[in-house]
Amino acid sequence: MRIPLNRQSHIPLYRQIETFLRQSILSGSLPPDTRLPASRQMAQDLGINRITVENAYAELAADGLIASRVGSGTYVLPPYPLPYLTGDAHSVPWPLWQQEMHFRNESAKKTLPDEMLKAAGHPDPISLAEGIGDSQLFPVKDFRKAIQSVLLSGDVATLEYGESNGYGPLRSTIAHILASQGLSARPENVIITSGSQQALALVSHLLLKPGDAILVESPTYSGALDLFRSLDLKIAGIPVDEDGMRVEMLERLLQQHHPKLIYSIPNFHNPTGVCMSSQRRRRLIALADGYNIPILEDDFVGDLRYEGRTQPALKSLDPGGRVIYISTFSKMLMPGLRIGFLVAEGPVYDSLVAFKQTYDLATSNLIQRSLEAYVTVGRYQTHLRRSCQIYRKRRDALLLAIHRHLPANAHIVPPQGGLFAWLHLPAHLLADDLLPLACQEGVSFAPGRNFFPEPPIDASGLRLNFVAQTPERIDEGIRRLGKAIRRLSLQP
Amino acid sequence: MRIPLNRQSHIPLYRQIETFLRQSILSGSLPPDTRLPASRQMAQDLGINRITVENAYAELAADGLIASRVGSGTYVLPPYPLPYLTGDAHSVPWPLWQQEMHFRNESAKKTLPDEMLKAAGHPDPISLAEGIGDSQLFPVKDFRKAIQSVLLSGDVATLEYGESNGYGPLRSTIAHILASQGLSARPENVIITSGSQQALALVSHLLLKPGDAILVESPTYSGALDLFRSLDLKIAGIPVDEDGMRVEMLERLLQQHHPKLIYSIPNFHNPTGVCMSSQRRRRLIALADGYNIPILEDDFVGDLRYEGRTQPALKSLDPGGRVIYISTFSKMLMPGLRIGFLVAEGPVYDSLVAFKQTYDLATSNLIQRSLEAYVTVGRYQTHLRRSCQIYRKRRDALLLAIHRHLPANAHIVPPQGGLFAWLHLPAHLLADDLLPLACQEGVSFAPGRNFFPEPPIDASGLRLNFVAQTPERIDEGIRRLGKAIRRLSLQP
Repeated sequence: MRIPLNRQSHIPLYRQIETFLRQSILSGSLPPDTRLPASRQMAQDLGINRITVENAYAELAADGLIASRVGSGTYVLPPYPLPYLTGDAHSVPWPLWQQEMHFRNESAKKTLPDEMLKAAGHPDPISLAEGIGDSQLFPVKDFRKAIQSVLLSGDVATLEYGESNGYGPLRSTIAHILASQGLSARPENVIITSGSQQALALVSHLLLKPGDAILVESPTYSGALDLFRSLDLKIAGIPVDEDGMRVEMLERLLQQHHPKLIYSIPNFHNPTGVCMSSQRRRRLIALADGYNIPILEDDFVGDLRYEGRTQPALKSLDPGGRVIYISTFSKMLMPGLRIGFLVAEGPVYDSLVAFKQTYDLATSNLIQRSLEAYVTVGRYQTHLRRSCQIYRKRRDALLLAIHRHLPANAHIVPPQGGLFAWLHLPAHLLADDLLPLACQEGVSFAPGRNFFPEPPIDASGLRLNFVAQTPERIDEGIRRLGKAIRRLSLQP
Repeated sequence: MRIPLNRQSHIPLYRQIETFLRQSILSGSLPPDTRLPASRQMAQDLGINRITVENAYAELAADGLIASRVGSGTYVLPPYPLPYLTGDAHSVPWPLWQQEMHFRNESAKKTLPDEMLKAAGHPDPISLAEGIGDSQLFPVKDFRKAIQSVLLSGDVATLEYGESNGYGPLRSTIAHILASQGLSARPENVIITSGSQQALALVSHLLLKPGDAILVESPTYSGALDLFRSLDLKIAGIPVDEDGMRVEMLERLLQQHHPKLIYSIPNFHNPTGVCMSSQRRRRLIALADGYNIPILEDDFVGDLRYEGRTQPALKSLDPGGRVIYISTFSKMLMPGLRIGFLVAEGPVYDSLVAFKQTYDLATSNLIQRSLEAYVTVGRYQTHLRRSCQIYRKRRDALLLAIHRHLPANAHIVPPQGGLFAWLHLPAHLLADDLLPLACQEGVSFAPGRNFFPEPPIDASGLRLNFVAQTPERIDEGIRRLGKAIRRLSLQP
């Protein structure tokens, strides 16, 4: 029996064998009463230790998928009655509804790049895989003073439930900040959420039912894809180039998929770092309006611009009630606060507030009030300018390091802002194959595959975070990446 | 034309007329081209001012539902093209998808008792309608010290994203607290959520699809009903008596509705305050197991017991993976923190963690770490003992006040713990009719109707919160309630 094994993977070999056999049995490709090879034979076939095979068999036997018949060998068991999946040795079997859950989880499991980096055991690992800014820049001290002042104020309402749409004065501050960025919004059109992820979840839950189609950029934010998949949505992708979503392909896709929502990240797109051109923005709004489809604009780092001209937010081109805008304080200030927000008007606003209430009643009042005590438009702008200065240097360090350490046929579109750059490896190299080697060298990145909703997948693409590390460490990280690329190129 | 008007309501009369006509038009009971009475005639019919009718007509005309024809009168417009629902005078019409949302919102709108109390304008209003404990008892000072120590520790991880299942040491503390209450749970079976409402939402979203049936106690927590309705679930009710859910009716209902989940509040049930008997608990577990249906146990105030013997949690009777247990720090400590948790084991645990991640990535790390720094088992027990002492006195004050101020045919089941008591008015009196009168007298309560998933509805029942006010104010509140009941009894 031939089982594909990945010796560079951090997943133990016995687990790889077990998983392969389990899937084969559950999918029916190894039907009941199939005789499995003797462990000695299997070990010889795969060039591994016999104990490894026996461990895999033991796991499958414990789950009731296979059984040994004395003097005859090991056989696949019939699928009914359903195999037991016991929690631990002495417990009773899980109920059937849990067993079904188990198979769902197995198919969704994935390994995070930074877990792989950690497992590789390099003495000084450098992560370029993260999704956030540099935590050293978080204004911890000032924020501590703010939270202290709120708790000292003695206003007991701070620790009670707040309004479902969020603390009024914080909604006003958000409206002011947005106005300073050219987006006019009224406080009564703002809803405060537990990070922009919750805003995403609220809008998708409200507007889509299982089986409905959603149109997204391909690639796009993997956390959004996880959400849409968990809702059993049909996800259709529209390609992205250097000017963002290829809007000229939109109308055909609208007619083909009849999506109930268009999800877009027009500024410093995750994962590619590109911005949508103004012309495409206007065309997108007009088409969505013509086809009666709401747009969900995810502007997670729209104001982190290091050069070039600002584009209007989709929301600012909205004639009224067409675009739901979401953003967050997580990237700019502190992700651990879990404060994001959305802007919407019209009937959908009330529906979203009602939905927010069924989700978690309200976002932490204490955190909202503390943030309100900390953030002013002036402070926000100051912090923004400082972040832009620091991050611009890191972006430049990345571009220089790529020029210095990577082969000339590794391409990158220099990002004008945001957190991410998209690196395209020489075409015959796959990011998934590169990752284990890179982790051995002591650097991680986010492989491209996870960002694509459906084929075609750019498996030679990968995402680099260039803001979470200092310029020196970015240089060192890319040097290591170059080394891993050379090693991969030399593999037969 | 006869329109039912409620002159005690805080809703303006013109709005009542407008709503009645709007619903009649949208439901088709007033078909297109129906001629509406002249405003003078309508005003005379209803015994109100003509301006009131004209205001109602103007609103409907602005929404494109009716129109005046010169010299002929006012007519209902045809439903197509859909009426414009403009945001404000100069804006463009909402897109069609928003207009559909509007009709949904209208049907879901309801007035909160405490809003009605406020609108009634009594100089010293007393709310017995709330869902929380007394905010004066919240340990604000100690908690401030804890949050301060966490922010001073200089650990920048505090302000980064945490683990999706929650901060490990806090999960350990929760496991310890549960063990001290006779429920053995391991930290790796705990998920920390944004209040127990989010735990409810996660479990329902994961286990049920639109159209699936869920079985709940009737009456039950209205926030759960709002959630289940927002998910388009079929909600079937099982009656409650003094010993909790009437489990002897369960099997028939399971066969009839094939629910995918049973939701129960076995301890100090919301809204009735009753506890399920041990015998029924065991029978419930056995039946759910036999029919392969998960149980969601909402133990929101299970440890707030003032007298009588503790019943085992459903979860502690669970042979493994049958019951998902949820609880919260909101009622005991501070609702504004938004920290709840659930306990589950088996494959569903991993599925819930993955779902939590798509919801909002993780709960605020800062709040979790501060709570962990504040809460120890000892501190929790001390706070619990103190709360029980204080709340027991208030419960006694309530019972005494009811005896003193209410008619003898107003029944109550004395609760042995928790926050709520259920008052049954003399049968011919409806809680909805009583509420406006009570608000005029300066007291509010939660009318029973909102807690029922479906008919039969006990419209003479109402929920009283007896922990949020001092004994003196409880006495005064019930005195006012008695006055309102007498006024209602005297109405023709």
